[in-house]
Amino acid sequence: MRYDFNFYNPTKIYFGKDSLSHLEDELAHYGKNVLFVYGGGSIKKIGLYDQVMEILKKAKKSVVELSGVMPNPTYKKMMEGASLVEQHHIDFILAVGGGSVIDCAKGISVAAYQENPWKKYWIDNEEVKHTTVPVGSILTMVGTGSEMNGGSVITNEEEKLKKGRVFDQNVYPKFSILNPTYTFTVSKYQMLSGIFDIFSHLMEQYFSNDDDNVSDDLMEALMHSLIKNTYKAVENPLDYEVRSNIEWISTLALNGLTKVGKTQDWQVHSIEHQLGAYTDCAHGMGLAAISTPYYRFIMQYAPYKFAKFAKEVFRIPSENKDEQTLAKLGIDALANFIKEVGMCTTLKELGATKEMLPLIANSTDLGGGYHDLAREEVLQILEACYE
Amino acid sequence: MRYDFNFYNPTKIYFGKDSLSHLEDELAHYGKNVLFVYGGGSIKKIGLYDQVMEILKKAKKSVVELSGVMPNPTYKKMMEGASLVEQHHIDFILAVGGGSVIDCAKGISVAAYQENPWKKYWIDNEEVKHTTVPVGSILTMVGTGSEMNGGSVITNEEEKLKKGRVFDQNVYPKFSILNPTYTFTVSKYQMLSGIFDIFSHLMEQYFSNDDDNVSDDLMEALMHSLIKNTYKAVENPLDYEVRSNIEWISTLALNGLTKVGKTQDWQVHSIEHQLGAYTDCAHGMGLAAISTPYYRFIMQYAPYKFAKFAKEVFRIPSENKDEQTLAKLGIDALANFIKEVGMCTTLKELGATKEMLPLIANSTDLGGGYHDLAREEVLQILEACYE
Repeated sequence: MRYDFNFYNPTKIYFGKDSLSHLEDELAHYGKNVLFVYGGGSIKKIGLYDQVMEILKKAKKSVVELSGVMPNPTYKKMMEGASLVEQHHIDFILAVGGGSVIDCAKGISVAAYQENPWKKYWIDNEEVKHTTVPVGSILTMVGTGSEMNGGSVITNEEEKLKKGRVFDQNVYPKFSILNPTYTFTVSKYQMLSGIFDIFSHLMEQYFSNDDDNVSDDLMEALMHSLIKNTYKAVENPLDYEVRSNIEWISTLALNGLTKVGKTQDWQVHSIEHQLGAYTDCAHGMGLAAISTPYYRFIMQYAPYKFAKFAKEVFRIPSENKDEQTLAKLGIDALANFIKEVGMCTTLKELGATKEMLPLIANSTDLGGGYHDLAREEVLQILEACYE
Repeated sequence: MRYDFNFYNPTKIYFGKDSLSHLEDELAHYGKNVLFVYGGGSIKKIGLYDQVMEILKKAKKSVVELSGVMPNPTYKKMMEGASLVEQHHIDFILAVGGGSVIDCAKGISVAAYQENPWKKYWIDNEEVKHTTVPVGSILTMVGTGSEMNGGSVITNEEEKLKKGRVFDQNVYPKFSILNPTYTFTVSKYQMLSGIFDIFSHLMEQYFSNDDDNVSDDLMEALMHSLIKNTYKAVENPLDYEVRSNIEWISTLALNGLTKVGKTQDWQVHSIEHQLGAYTDCAHGMGLAAISTPYYRFIMQYAPYKFAKFAKEVFRIPSENKDEQTLAKLGIDALANFIKEVGMCTTLKELGATKEMLPLIANSTDLGGGYHDLAREEVLQILEACYE
């Protein structure tokens, strides 16, 4: 571990088929007024809404609802939640849904009672010094890792900006309940989008600088396992063990564990955030489309690491192959995986137009792992996966 | 993940060359009276004692010392600490040393102000319901993982019993400072003993039941990485990156991460605890001696998993090999690794006598992963590695 690091993650995880049974005990630690945040109603379809309501009632909570949190949660929606917190003196925020709902809940927790929170916490990245409202989560969609970290990605529609902020441990969910059966009704498209989000989180941390260490060993194992489990999930989406493996990989991929001692990259996410701001596409599918041309371009700056990726993640035999060849085979295998399991490969199918490409390139935050992209290079990458 | 699990680990880790710089800020969270617990004086040799004392002084703490904590900390030593806590109204326990010192500090934290704590907490495994004194640690020797868990292994000399208790999160160190350079002066023998302790922690969790999942994928990566780094550490013990990789693997191997969804084994540790109670041998070396005959015996109950171990951990090519053959090659590779790096292979060299073997077998706690050993089988295993 060439670089010093701190690691601290105080989120409690309850994982498995009976994990909802822990909700009542957890709720006992918090005050009476609960803001129940959720999305478009899928939690009603699977019966989870009723179950949660019953537990809230049993725990004698006074419940205010914020529904309709969208896949890329907007600043406006978040501020609607913040004003509910203020109005009802909310003691605890319970987020039930995917990463968007949890991201939104964390945003609400930080934004309530604050003036101009967008500028302070998403643009200027100010430290949060005030006491925030505690958040707990019940996860129904896999990919963002939001259930065990301080991340909160919010889209400001007026400003056409999608910004990810990572808050400190005070904003992490106090607990998260993960029951893989809740993810069974998600469409194949959404499942695959979530899976590529996980894969991208790992690649963004893996491909960086001169910092190879145990974190890389762990990420190789997680990527290898994710690929193996993805093929099985496509074959049989209702295989509990497979879906639970994917769900736990998702949490581990972004709970801080795999980034220790790493400098990291995150350029693919930066580009995708702006793609998302213009197209509102599924985040993971955007990442899938951008990744192949991005890594083909970046490979030249660290062929050694891409050769290691080929060998350890895709298990491509390395005998009699030079580094360049092996590295290229690794990216080919990545492209092949994306295609075979049915993820998106072009921006056009995600709703982007040719006119959007320079706008996306010009609004992307720059700065990365092996090489800081220039705007022309971002544009080149976008053009390479346009159609 | 076939089995439900909870995961919660609130220990803060400060890792790296400058990690001691966080001590002062951490101390500010706790009261004035500090019990400073350490071992045989090696922390004075490396200058750490003086550095810590200076920080404690700067933080205006009133310091009481408990020195001389031995490699297998005794109940008597622990109770000496507990009585210091009571006498001096200790607010915080700072453990500076290896796993034994941290185990002892956690034991003191639990035992203070309690009647008959040995029976309650190490024999009857009662839940700790009282408020314990918070513990922080500075690690100088790698292996036990005590810096980020609730484990406390204590030896009761009068009763000839060495018992490991795992306490809940309230007893975990609040923070642990890990600076790999502190481990540089440990002898090669102690370094290797610590390394095999890590390897054994991983095998004890890996080889169990019908619970194969992502935790196994992670453990394969950690074991593979540990082997690679051990060979490098034997070659050059002062390689910072190698020693830091080993230190972090050690923490991860027993902080709860790798056991999620696993039923686990721990029979090798059970046997070694009694070997240790009779010989006071270095814990990891005891584990190294016992492991080969134990796994050779157990292999028949899960050849599939031992074949996987061979393939994924030792990277033995699996083509044209049946499961039994591959499994056996894996154990051979383990035995070879133990021998090549210079770990102990016989109980005789650890100070055991032939007469001790039945006494050890008869006092070992039974019950394990693939197969519950009978006492005769424990004795068989001990005889197989006697000389």
